[in-house]
Amino acid sequence: MPKDNSDKTISSIGRAGLIRHISGVSAYRSERVAYGIGDDAAVLHANESKYGLISSETLVEGVEFDLSFMPFHQVGAKAVTAGVSDIYAMNGQPHAVLINLGVPNRITRDMIDELYRGIGMACSDYGCQLSGGDLTGSHNAMIISVTAYGDVEKEKIIYNSGAKVDDAVCVTGDLGSALAGLKVLLREKRHWEESEDPVMQPDLTEWDYIVKRQLVPIARKDMISLFRQNEIRPTSMIDVSQGLLHDLQRVLTSSQKGAYLYQSALPIDLQTRKLADEMQEDVDKYALYGGEDFELLFTLPEKEAGKLAELSRDFSVIGKITGKPAQVEMQTAEGEVIVFGDETG
Amino acid sequence: MPKDNSDKTISSIGRAGLIRHISGVSAYRSERVAYGIGDDAAVLHANESKYGLISSETLVEGVEFDLSFMPFHQVGAKAVTAGVSDIYAMNGQPHAVLINLGVPNRITRDMIDELYRGIGMACSDYGCQLSGGDLTGSHNAMIISVTAYGDVEKEKIIYNSGAKVDDAVCVTGDLGSALAGLKVLLREKRHWEESEDPVMQPDLTEWDYIVKRQLVPIARKDMISLFRQNEIRPTSMIDVSQGLLHDLQRVLTSSQKGAYLYQSALPIDLQTRKLADEMQEDVDKYALYGGEDFELLFTLPEKEAGKLAELSRDFSVIGKITGKPAQVEMQTAEGEVIVFGDETG
Repeated sequence: MPKDNSDKTISSIGRAGLIRHISGVSAYRSERVAYGIGDDAAVLHANESKYGLISSETLVEGVEFDLSFMPFHQVGAKAVTAGVSDIYAMNGQPHAVLINLGVPNRITRDMIDELYRGIGMACSDYGCQLSGGDLTGSHNAMIISVTAYGDVEKEKIIYNSGAKVDDAVCVTGDLGSALAGLKVLLREKRHWEESEDPVMQPDLTEWDYIVKRQLVPIARKDMISLFRQNEIRPTSMIDVSQGLLHDLQRVLTSSQKGAYLYQSALPIDLQTRKLADEMQEDVDKYALYGGEDFELLFTLPEKEAGKLAELSRDFSVIGKITGKPAQVEMQTAEGEVIVFGDETG
Repeated sequence: MPKDNSDKTISSIGRAGLIRHISGVSAYRSERVAYGIGDDAAVLHANESKYGLISSETLVEGVEFDLSFMPFHQVGAKAVTAGVSDIYAMNGQPHAVLINLGVPNRITRDMIDELYRGIGMACSDYGCQLSGGDLTGSHNAMIISVTAYGDVEKEKIIYNSGAKVDDAVCVTGDLGSALAGLKVLLREKRHWEESEDPVMQPDLTEWDYIVKRQLVPIARKDMISLFRQNEIRPTSMIDVSQGLLHDLQRVLTSSQKGAYLYQSALPIDLQTRKLADEMQEDVDKYALYGGEDFELLFTLPEKEAGKLAELSRDFSVIGKITGKPAQVEMQTAEGEVIVFGDETG
């Protein structure tokens, strides 16, 4: 690409930049749409008591998934997880999934069978019906687009814009493990490519947890149920699909707030730490920038966070909300404070 | 691909074959889904009086669109048209559109601006709000996935499956012109590639209608309004996106009926005829197999078809429904009867 053009490429404005940009381009507003661009899912007026929620994303082979180490059924299941995770992140329940495939010639019917086996299993797990989709050709890369539909009681919807000053910043599970799993898998792929032995089978048992986090992530349906059963209502919520800093920044921008994080509070699994050590990389960067964990990032009044802590140990308070718009500060173990720029581009 | 594998490729089972196949794979049924796979859109229980409708499709550069002769804003508008056409085909009104893009590096921000300009214009035309979407990378081909959401009064929904024996088979507008337009554009592209003159501008004015049908097709919102205003309710309906025979076959399979067509009644524009003559091809094949016309194919009791004929001249009765399941017979001008196999694979 010519140099004088480089400041106009998509990567230069980034994903969130583009989203802000296109929000301005299309002016038409429908009274059936309660909330359009900017949250995990589009929010529609369904009936007096409920909103409909729709989310859609496209996964491209070689960008979002690698068929050289991901079995087809896991790719299918992961696509569904990515879709429904956005519905849970609005505190909703998914009901239907549509799958579109772009299929290159080398893909056989058996492979598609396997893909749909995974889609079907994930649909059952999340209580969704596979309800449609589309099939087209593709040149080289396989393409999977997933649309998830769900709904939520109007008074229970959680936007990413509701964070309040002094709220606790919470995250379920642990962070960076899906990225760590990907790094293990890519390392083994490289070893395999470099080896003379085409049937070499890597032993990944010592990395079982992080590999599973990459290959078979699970959307946090369980945590949404816990919130409901105990009448806990986060003030804001988003799923960690792009990475903690990126997704937190979206909450902060929407809420016009800032966040103060404690580095030592970032939940990191032991295997993730071990891998970062082997790779001689900074494990906190895995936690801050790693995507695809599909954990829930949410804010709660401190008292509510205390109540939740009595019910579940599967979440961490990693900091609190401040009044400094879009600013993320992080206190290191040494007491130093790092300030991050806007990670959403 | 090895020969012993060839019977397992996707092309060997076809699009509808795959749809039938996957319907069996995923067993989970949600009570929120009124009707899943098999019609233009998925049908959801929204409230007591209305169904929600969702449709999604993926368009791949070089398969569904060609950026060498399609301006970006027309690609954007056409993607929206493809999405909302499925909502109209259920007799619904579209309200929201989600767009996912897979963008290769060569695409600049200006191009994306143009794409969204077309998306925005089409959304306004159809009364839809651009309500979300996703952005990812792509290797070579640009990928556009469009999800359309709409709704329809429960008593007004029209499925594929309602055709009755002796109903008139009707189609709006004309057939095969989008394919004819594509053939003109591909011919000019070839001329341009073979010429020594890189700035050669083809004069397409004599083909203005068919080129427009390919580049800026329009979903038949107007016909849906006419039905509503005059309380005309087709017994079955589908949009002509894959080609008349293919889409008719879907209606017949769902309805467990057959059709008897009159070849001389197929509505074909003069430019389409002229192009087929120049190409020395059979224009009826354009009408029977050409996709992307986005016209509505519907069935009506004969009396209702008469009533509609008093209100609009923009549709044709091309035959009638018979009791021979999945069989399409066509009477030629010479009185011969051709029987078509199942075109849906």
